[in-house]
Amino acid sequence: MADYTALPLTVLAEQFAKLPGIGMKTAKRLAYHVTTMSNSDVQEFSNALINVKCNIHLCDICQNFTDGVTCPLCSDHNRDGSIVCVVETPQDIAIFEKSGDFNGLYHVLHGLISPLGKVMPQDLKVSELLKRVQSGTVKEVIMATNSTVEGDATAIYIANLLKPLGVKVTRLAFGIPVGSYIEYVDDVTINKALENRNEM
Amino acid sequence: MADYTALPLTVLAEQFAKLPGIGMKTAKRLAYHVTTMSNSDVQEFSNALINVKCNIHLCDICQNFTDGVTCPLCSDHNRDGSIVCVVETPQDIAIFEKSGDFNGLYHVLHGLISPLGKVMPQDLKVSELLKRVQSGTVKEVIMATNSTVEGDATAIYIANLLKPLGVKVTRLAFGIPVGSYIEYVDDVTINKALENRNEM
Repeated sequence: MADYTALPLTVLAEQFAKLPGIGMKTAKRLAYHVTTMSNSDVQEFSNALINVKCNIHLCDICQNFTDGVTCPLCSDHNRDGSIVCVVETPQDIAIFEKSGDFNGLYHVLHGLISPLGKVMPQDLKVSELLKRVQSGTVKEVIMATNSTVEGDATAIYIANLLKPLGVKVTRLAFGIPVGSYIEYVDDVTINKALENRNEM
Repeated sequence: MADYTALPLTVLAEQFAKLPGIGMKTAKRLAYHVTTMSNSDVQEFSNALINVKCNIHLCDICQNFTDGVTCPLCSDHNRDGSIVCVVETPQDIAIFEKSGDFNGLYHVLHGLISPLGKVMPQDLKVSELLKRVQSGTVKEVIMATNSTVEGDATAIYIANLLKPLGVKVTRLAFGIPVGSYIEYVDDVTINKALENRNEM
Protein backbone atom coordinates (compact mmCIF):
# COMPACT_ATOMS: atom_id res chain seq x y z
CA MET A 1 0.00 0.00 0.00
CA ALA A 2 1.54 3.31 -1.02
CA ASP A 3 2.00 6.00 1.64
CA TYR A 4 -1.03 8.04 0.54
CA THR A 5 -3.23 5.40 2.17
CA ALA A 6 -4.23 6.29 5.73
CA LEU A 7 -1.97 4.47 8.21
CA PRO A 8 -4.71 2.72 10.24
CA LEU A 9 -6.01 1.20 6.98
CA THR A 10 -2.55 -0.04 6.02
CA VAL A 11 -2.04 -1.51 9.49
CA LEU A 12 -5.38 -3.33 9.37
CA ALA A 13 -4.69 -4.63 5.85
CA GLU A 14 -1.36 -6.01 7.07
CA GLN A 15 -3.18 -7.78 9.91
CA PHE A 16 -5.66 -9.37 7.50
CA ALA A 17 -2.79 -10.38 5.19
CA LYS A 18 -1.25 -12.41 8.03
CA LEU A 19 -4.24 -14.77 7.93
CA PRO A 20 -3.85 -17.95 5.86
CA GLY A 21 -5.07 -17.73 2.27
CA ILE A 22 -5.50 -13.93 2.35
CA GLY A 23 -3.16 -11.99 0.06
CA MET A 24 -2.43 -8.26 0.22
CA LYS A 25 -5.08 -7.43 -2.41
CA THR A 26 -7.88 -9.18 -0.52
CA ALA A 27 -6.53 -7.79 2.76
CA LYS A 28 -6.84 -4.22 1.45
CA ARG A 29 -10.39 -4.93 0.25
CA LEU A 30 -11.30 -6.27 3.71
CA ALA A 31 -9.71 -3.26 5.44
CA TYR A 32 -11.75 -0.90 3.26
CA HIS A 33 -14.85 -2.96 4.05
CA VAL A 34 -14.29 -2.38 7.77
CA THR A 35 -14.61 1.38 7.17
CA THR A 36 -18.17 0.74 5.96
CA MET A 37 -19.14 -1.34 9.01
CA SER A 38 -20.97 0.23 11.96
CA ASN A 39 -18.99 1.05 15.10
CA SER A 40 -20.82 -1.65 17.04
CA ASP A 41 -20.14 -4.30 14.38
CA VAL A 42 -16.42 -3.49 14.44
CA GLN A 43 -16.44 -3.59 18.26
CA GLU A 44 -18.15 -7.01 18.16
CA PHE A 45 -15.58 -8.32 15.66
CA SER A 46 -12.73 -6.97 17.78
CA ASN A 47 -14.19 -8.54 20.94
CA ALA A 48 -14.73 -11.88 19.19
CA LEU A 49 -11.02 -12.00 18.35
CA ILE A 50 -9.98 -11.34 21.93
CA ASN A 51 -12.58 -13.78 23.29
CA VAL A 52 -11.18 -16.66 21.30
CA LYS A 53 -7.77 -16.15 22.89
CA CYS A 54 -9.11 -15.49 26.40
CA ASN A 55 -11.91 -18.02 26.72
CA ILE A 56 -10.81 -20.95 24.60
CA HIS A 57 -8.63 -23.69 26.02
CA LEU A 58 -8.15 -27.41 25.48
CA CYS A 59 -10.64 -29.97 26.78
CA ASP A 60 -9.10 -31.89 29.72
CA ILE A 61 -10.00 -35.19 28.08
CA CYS A 62 -9.87 -34.95 24.26
CA GLN A 63 -7.73 -31.79 23.80
CA ASN A 64 -10.36 -30.24 21.52
CA PHE A 65 -10.98 -26.48 21.87
CA THR A 66 -13.68 -25.67 24.40
CA ASP A 67 -14.82 -22.82 26.62
CA GLY A 68 -15.83 -25.20 29.43
CA VAL A 69 -13.68 -27.62 31.47
CA THR A 70 -14.57 -30.60 29.29
CA CYS A 71 -16.00 -30.22 25.79
CA PRO A 72 -19.66 -30.95 24.96
CA LEU A 73 -18.65 -34.19 23.21
CA CYS A 74 -16.71 -35.61 26.18
CA SER A 75 -19.52 -34.50 28.56
CA ASP A 76 -22.18 -36.23 26.42
CA HIS A 77 -23.14 -39.53 28.13
CA ASN A 78 -24.77 -40.82 24.93
CA ARG A 79 -21.36 -41.06 23.24
CA ASP A 80 -19.44 -44.34 23.40
CA GLY A 81 -16.31 -43.67 25.46
CA SER A 82 -14.78 -47.04 24.58
CA ILE A 83 -13.88 -45.94 21.04
CA VAL A 84 -11.51 -43.00 20.52
CA CYS A 85 -10.85 -41.52 17.09
CA VAL A 86 -7.42 -39.83 16.97
CA VAL A 87 -7.32 -36.79 14.66
CA GLU A 88 -4.72 -34.18 13.76
CA THR A 89 -6.76 -30.99 14.27
CA PRO A 90 -10.01 -29.85 15.94
CA GLN A 91 -11.34 -29.12 12.44
CA ASP A 92 -11.11 -32.84 11.58
CA ILE A 93 -13.70 -33.57 14.27
CA ALA A 94 -16.24 -31.53 12.30
CA ILE A 95 -15.70 -33.78 9.25
CA PHE A 96 -16.45 -36.95 11.22
CA GLU A 97 -19.39 -35.37 13.06
CA LYS A 98 -20.88 -34.21 9.76
CA SER A 99 -20.75 -37.75 8.37
CA GLY A 100 -22.91 -38.69 11.36
CA ASP A 101 -22.01 -42.41 11.66
CA PHE A 102 -19.44 -42.17 14.44
CA ASN A 103 -20.67 -42.17 18.02
CA GLY A 104 -17.39 -42.54 19.89
CA LEU A 105 -15.11 -39.83 21.29
CA TYR A 106 -12.11 -38.04 19.81
CA HIS A 107 -8.54 -37.19 20.68
CA VAL A 108 -6.87 -34.21 19.02
CA LEU A 109 -3.10 -34.45 18.50
CA HIS A 110 -2.74 -30.80 17.39
CA GLY A 111 -0.26 -31.74 14.69
CA LEU A 112 1.61 -34.65 13.15
CA ILE A 113 5.12 -35.91 13.79
CA SER A 114 7.38 -34.22 11.24
CA PRO A 115 11.16 -34.36 11.73
CA LEU A 116 11.63 -31.87 8.86
CA GLY A 117 9.11 -29.43 10.41
CA LYS A 118 10.77 -30.02 13.82
CA VAL A 119 7.54 -31.43 15.29
CA MET A 120 8.39 -34.24 17.70
CA PRO A 121 5.98 -36.57 19.58
CA GLN A 122 6.42 -34.49 22.74
CA ASP A 123 5.03 -31.46 20.86
CA LEU A 124 1.77 -33.35 20.29
CA LYS A 125 -0.94 -34.52 22.70
CA VAL A 126 0.41 -38.09 22.66
CA SER A 127 1.11 -38.48 26.39
CA GLU A 128 -2.46 -37.30 27.09
CA LEU A 129 -3.74 -40.07 24.78
CA LEU A 130 -1.61 -42.70 26.53
CA LYS A 131 -2.89 -41.59 29.97
CA ARG A 132 -6.44 -41.74 28.65
CA VAL A 133 -5.97 -45.32 27.40
CA GLN A 134 -4.17 -46.35 30.61
CA SER A 135 -7.18 -45.14 32.63
CA GLY A 136 -8.96 -48.23 31.28
CA THR A 137 -12.25 -47.24 29.62
CA VAL A 138 -10.91 -47.15 26.05
CA LYS A 139 -11.20 -50.43 24.09
CA GLU A 140 -10.40 -49.24 20.55
CA VAL A 141 -8.32 -46.39 19.17
CA ILE A 142 -8.92 -45.43 15.53
CA MET A 143 -5.94 -43.65 13.96
CA ALA A 144 -7.63 -41.08 11.71
CA THR A 145 -4.62 -39.03 10.63
CA ASN A 146 -4.17 -38.04 6.97
CA SER A 147 -2.96 -40.48 4.36
CA THR A 148 0.36 -38.66 4.02
CA VAL A 149 3.93 -39.51 5.04
CA GLU A 150 3.52 -37.56 8.31
CA GLY A 151 0.01 -38.91 8.90
CA ASP A 152 1.09 -42.52 8.39
CA ALA A 153 4.27 -42.12 10.45
CA THR A 154 2.33 -40.59 13.34
CA ALA A 155 -0.28 -43.36 13.17
CA ILE A 156 2.40 -46.08 13.25
CA TYR A 157 4.34 -44.36 16.05
CA ILE A 158 1.26 -44.03 18.27
CA ALA A 159 0.00 -47.55 17.41
CA ASN A 160 3.32 -48.98 18.62
CA LEU A 161 2.94 -47.12 21.93
CA LEU A 162 -0.69 -48.21 22.39
CA LYS A 163 -0.50 -51.90 21.49
CA PRO A 164 1.46 -52.93 24.65
CA LEU A 165 -1.40 -51.41 26.68
CA GLY A 166 -3.73 -54.12 25.33
CA VAL A 167 -6.01 -51.77 23.39
CA LYS A 168 -7.23 -52.48 19.83
CA VAL A 169 -5.65 -50.02 17.39
CA THR A 170 -7.18 -49.54 13.95
CA ARG A 171 -6.50 -47.26 10.97
CA LEU A 172 -9.06 -45.63 8.65
CA ALA A 173 -9.56 -47.58 5.41
CA PHE A 174 -7.90 -46.00 2.38
CA GLY A 175 -9.19 -46.78 -1.12
CA ILE A 176 -11.23 -45.45 -3.97
CA PRO A 177 -13.47 -42.52 -2.93
CA VAL A 178 -17.16 -43.47 -3.05
CA GLY A 179 -18.86 -42.19 -6.22
CA SER A 180 -15.64 -41.59 -8.14
CA TYR A 181 -14.59 -42.95 -11.54
CA ILE A 182 -11.73 -45.46 -11.45
CA GLU A 183 -10.38 -43.80 -14.61
CA TYR A 184 -9.44 -40.71 -12.61
CA VAL A 185 -8.07 -42.37 -9.47
CA ASP A 186 -4.30 -42.11 -8.95
CA ASP A 187 -1.97 -45.18 -9.00
CA VAL A 188 -1.16 -45.20 -5.30
CA THR A 189 -4.86 -45.20 -4.37
CA ILE A 190 -5.57 -48.00 -6.90
CA ASN A 191 -2.77 -50.10 -5.38
CA LYS A 192 -4.09 -49.39 -1.86
CA ALA A 193 -7.61 -50.36 -2.96
CA LEU A 194 -6.30 -53.65 -4.47
CA GLU A 195 -4.20 -54.44 -1.42
CA ASN A 196 -7.13 -53.87 0.99
CA ARG A 197 -9.77 -55.57 -1.19
CA ASN A 198 -12.65 -57.22 0.68
CA GLU A 199 -14.47 -60.48 -0.06
CA MET A 200 -17.98 -59.97 -1.46
CA MET B 1 -20.88 -24.99 13.02
CA ALA B 2 -22.49 -27.69 15.14
CA ASP B 3 -22.92 -27.06 18.85
CA TYR B 4 -19.89 -29.13 19.90
CA THR B 5 -17.69 -26.27 18.66
CA ALA B 6 -16.69 -23.86 21.40
CA LEU B 7 -18.95 -20.78 21.33
CA PRO B 8 -16.21 -18.11 21.04
CA LEU B 9 -14.91 -19.90 17.93
CA THR B 10 -18.39 -19.97 16.38
CA VAL B 11 -18.89 -16.29 17.16
CA LEU B 12 -15.55 -15.33 15.60
CA ALA B 13 -16.24 -17.47 12.53
CA GLU B 14 -19.58 -15.68 12.10
CA GLN B 15 -17.75 -12.33 12.28
CA PHE B 16 -15.28 -13.39 9.59
CA ALA B 17 -18.15 -14.70 7.44
CA LYS B 18 -19.71 -11.21 7.40
CA LEU B 19 -16.70 -9.93 5.42
CA PRO B 20 -17.10 -9.79 1.64
CA GLY B 21 -15.89 -12.87 -0.25
CA ILE B 22 -15.46 -14.97 2.88
CA GLY B 23 -17.78 -17.97 3.16
CA MET B 24 -18.51 -19.98 6.30
CA LYS B 25 -15.88 -22.62 5.47
CA THR B 26 -13.07 -20.06 5.13
CA ALA B 27 -14.42 -18.17 8.15
CA LYS B 28 -14.09 -21.31 10.31
CA ARG B 29 -10.56 -21.87 9.04
CA LEU B 30 -9.64 -18.28 9.93
CA ALA B 31 -11.23 -18.59 13.38
CA TYR B 32 -9.19 -21.73 14.07
CA HIS B 33 -6.10 -19.91 12.83
CA VAL B 34 -6.65 -17.21 15.45
CA THR B 35 -6.32 -19.87 18.18
CA THR B 36 -2.77 -20.49 16.95
CA MET B 37 -1.80 -16.79 17.00
CA SER B 38 0.03 -15.29 19.97
CA ASN B 39 -1.94 -13.18 22.47
CA SER B 40 -0.10 -10.03 21.38
CA ASP B 41 -0.79 -10.69 17.67
CA VAL B 42 -4.51 -11.10 18.37
CA GLN B 43 -4.48 -7.94 20.49
CA GLU B 44 -2.77 -6.05 17.64
CA PHE B 45 -5.35 -7.33 15.14
CA SER B 46 -8.19 -6.38 17.46
CA ASN B 47 -6.73 -2.89 17.99
CA ALA B 48 -6.20 -2.39 14.25
CA LEU B 49 -9.92 -3.01 13.68
CA ILE B 50 -10.95 -0.45 16.29
CA ASN B 51 -8.34 2.06 15.06
CA VAL B 52 -9.74 2.08 11.56
CA LYS B 53 -13.15 3.10 12.90
CA CYS B 54 -11.80 5.60 15.46
CA ASN B 55 -8.99 7.30 13.57
CA ILE B 56 -10.11 7.25 9.95
CA HIS B 57 -12.29 9.99 8.53
CA LEU B 58 -12.74 11.69 5.19
CA CYS B 59 -10.23 14.21 3.84
CA ASP B 60 -11.74 17.73 3.96
CA ILE B 61 -10.83 18.28 0.31
CA CYS B 62 -10.99 15.01 -1.68
CA GLN B 63 -13.16 12.85 0.64
CA ASN B 64 -10.56 10.05 0.60
CA PHE B 65 -9.93 8.19 3.88
CA THR B 66 -7.23 9.76 6.00
CA ASP B 67 -6.07 9.95 9.60
CA GLY B 68 -5.03 13.62 9.26
CA VAL B 69 -7.17 16.68 8.45
CA THR B 70 -6.28 16.59 4.76
CA CYS B 71 -4.89 13.48 3.07
CA PRO B 72 -1.21 13.22 1.98
CA LEU B 73 -2.23 13.65 -1.68
CA CYS B 74 -4.14 16.91 -1.11
CA SER B 75 -1.31 18.19 1.15
CA ASP B 76 1.34 17.41 -1.49
CA HIS B 77 2.31 20.70 -3.21
CA ASN B 78 3.94 18.80 -6.10
CA ARG B 79 0.51 17.60 -7.27
CA ASP B 80 -1.38 19.63 -9.86
CA GLY B 81 -4.50 20.96 -8.12
CA SER B 82 -6.02 22.18 -11.37
CA ILE B 83 -6.96 18.64 -12.52
CA VAL B 84 -9.35 16.58 -10.41
CA CYS B 85 -10.04 12.93 -11.17
CA VAL B 86 -13.48 11.87 -9.86
CA VAL B 87 -13.60 8.24 -8.70
CA GLU B 88 -16.22 6.01 -7.09
CA THR B 89 -14.18 4.58 -4.18
CA PRO B 90 -10.92 5.28 -2.30
CA GLN B 91 -9.63 1.97 -3.72
CA ASP B 92 -9.86 3.42 -7.25
CA ILE B 93 -7.23 6.02 -6.30
CA ALA B 94 -4.72 3.21 -5.78
CA ILE B 95 -5.28 2.02 -9.38
CA PHE B 96 -4.50 5.45 -10.84
CA GLU B 97 -1.54 6.02 -8.50
CA LYS B 98 -0.09 2.63 -9.46
CA SER B 99 -0.22 3.54 -13.16
CA GLY B 100 1.97 6.52 -12.20
CA ASP B 101 1.08 8.89 -15.07
CA PHE B 102 -1.47 11.05 -13.25
CA ASN B 103 -0.20 13.98 -11.18
CA GLY B 104 -3.48 15.75 -10.39
CA LEU B 105 -5.74 15.34 -7.38
CA TYR B 106 -8.77 13.13 -6.77
CA HIS B 107 -12.34 13.39 -5.57
CA VAL B 108 -14.02 10.33 -4.08
CA LEU B 109 -17.80 10.07 -4.57
CA HIS B 110 -18.19 7.05 -2.23
CA GLY B 111 -20.69 5.41 -4.54
CA LEU B 112 -22.57 5.82 -7.81
CA ILE B 113 -26.07 7.10 -8.47
CA SER B 114 -28.35 4.06 -8.56
CA PRO B 115 -32.12 4.57 -8.37
CA LEU B 116 -32.62 0.78 -7.99
CA GLY B 117 -30.11 0.64 -5.12
CA LYS B 118 -31.73 3.78 -3.65
CA VAL B 119 -28.49 5.77 -3.95
CA MET B 120 -29.31 9.37 -4.86
CA PRO B 121 -26.88 12.25 -5.69
CA GLN B 122 -27.31 13.64 -2.16
CA ASP B 123 -25.93 10.32 -0.78
CA LEU B 124 -22.68 10.92 -2.64
CA LYS B 125 -19.94 13.55 -2.21
CA VAL B 126 -21.29 15.58 -5.16
CA SER B 127 -21.94 18.87 -3.34
CA GLU B 128 -18.38 18.74 -1.96
CA LEU B 129 -17.10 18.43 -5.54
CA LEU B 130 -19.22 21.39 -6.68
CA LYS B 131 -17.92 23.54 -3.80
CA ARG B 132 -14.36 22.52 -4.69
CA VAL B 133 -14.83 23.56 -8.32
CA GLN B 134 -16.60 26.77 -7.30
CA SER B 135 -13.58 27.70 -5.16
CA GLY B 136 -11.81 28.35 -8.48
CA THR B 137 -8.53 26.43 -8.63
CA VAL B 138 -9.89 23.49 -10.61
CA LYS B 139 -9.61 23.76 -14.42
CA GLU B 140 -10.44 20.19 -15.50
CA VAL B 141 -12.54 17.44 -13.95
CA ILE B 142 -11.96 13.91 -15.27
CA MET B 143 -14.95 11.62 -14.72
CA ALA B 144 -13.30 8.29 -13.91
CA THR B 145 -16.33 6.25 -12.85
CA ASN B 146 -16.82 2.68 -14.14
CA SER B 147 -18.04 1.98 -17.64
CA THR B 148 -21.38 0.66 -16.34
CA VAL B 149 -24.92 2.02 -16.46
CA GLU B 150 -24.49 3.56 -12.98
CA GLY B 151 -20.97 4.81 -13.75
CA ASP B 152 -22.06 6.48 -16.99
CA ALA B 153 -25.22 7.95 -15.47
CA THR B 154 -23.26 9.40 -12.55
CA ALA B 155 -20.64 10.86 -14.92
CA ILE B 156 -23.32 12.50 -17.08
CA TYR B 157 -25.24 13.82 -14.07
CA ILE B 158 -22.14 15.42 -12.52
CA ALA B 159 -20.87 16.73 -15.88
CA ASN B 160 -24.18 18.56 -16.36
CA LEU B 161 -23.78 20.21 -12.95
CA LEU B 162 -20.13 21.16 -13.57
CA LYS B 163 -20.32 22.55 -17.12
CA PRO B 164 -22.26 25.75 -16.12
CA LEU B 165 -19.37 26.49 -13.71
CA GLY B 166 -17.05 26.94 -16.71
CA VAL B 167 -14.81 24.00 -15.91
CA LYS B 168 -13.60 21.49 -18.53
CA VAL B 169 -15.20 18.10 -17.93
CA THR B 170 -13.68 14.99 -19.53
CA ARG B 171 -14.40 11.26 -19.37
CA LEU B 172 -11.89 8.39 -19.39
CA ALA B 173 -11.42 6.87 -22.85
CA PHE B 174 -13.12 3.50 -23.32
CA GLY B 175 -11.89 1.11 -25.98
CA ILE B 176 -9.85 -2.02 -26.57
CA PRO B 177 -7.59 -2.86 -23.59
CA VAL B 178 -3.90 -2.47 -24.44
CA GLY B 179 -2.25 -5.82 -25.26
CA SER B 180 -5.50 -7.69 -25.87
CA TYR B 181 -6.59 -9.67 -28.94
CA ILE B 182 -9.45 -8.11 -30.90
CA GLU B 183 -10.85 -11.64 -31.36
CA TYR B 184 -11.74 -11.79 -27.67
CA VAL B 185 -13.07 -8.24 -27.20
CA ASP B 186 -16.85 -7.93 -26.67
CA ASP B 187 -19.18 -6.21 -29.17
CA VAL B 188 -19.93 -3.14 -27.05
CA THR B 189 -16.23 -2.42 -26.54
CA ILE B 190 -15.55 -2.87 -30.29
CA ASN B 191 -18.34 -0.40 -31.10
CA LYS B 192 -16.99 2.05 -28.50
CA ALA B 193 -13.47 1.71 -29.98
CA LEU B 194 -14.78 2.38 -33.49
CA GLU B 195 -16.87 5.34 -32.36
CA ASN B 196 -13.92 6.93 -30.51
CA ARG B 197 -11.29 6.15 -33.18
CA ASN B 198 -8.38 8.60 -33.46
CA GLU B 199 -6.58 9.86 -36.54
CA MET B 200 -3.07 8.40 -36.93
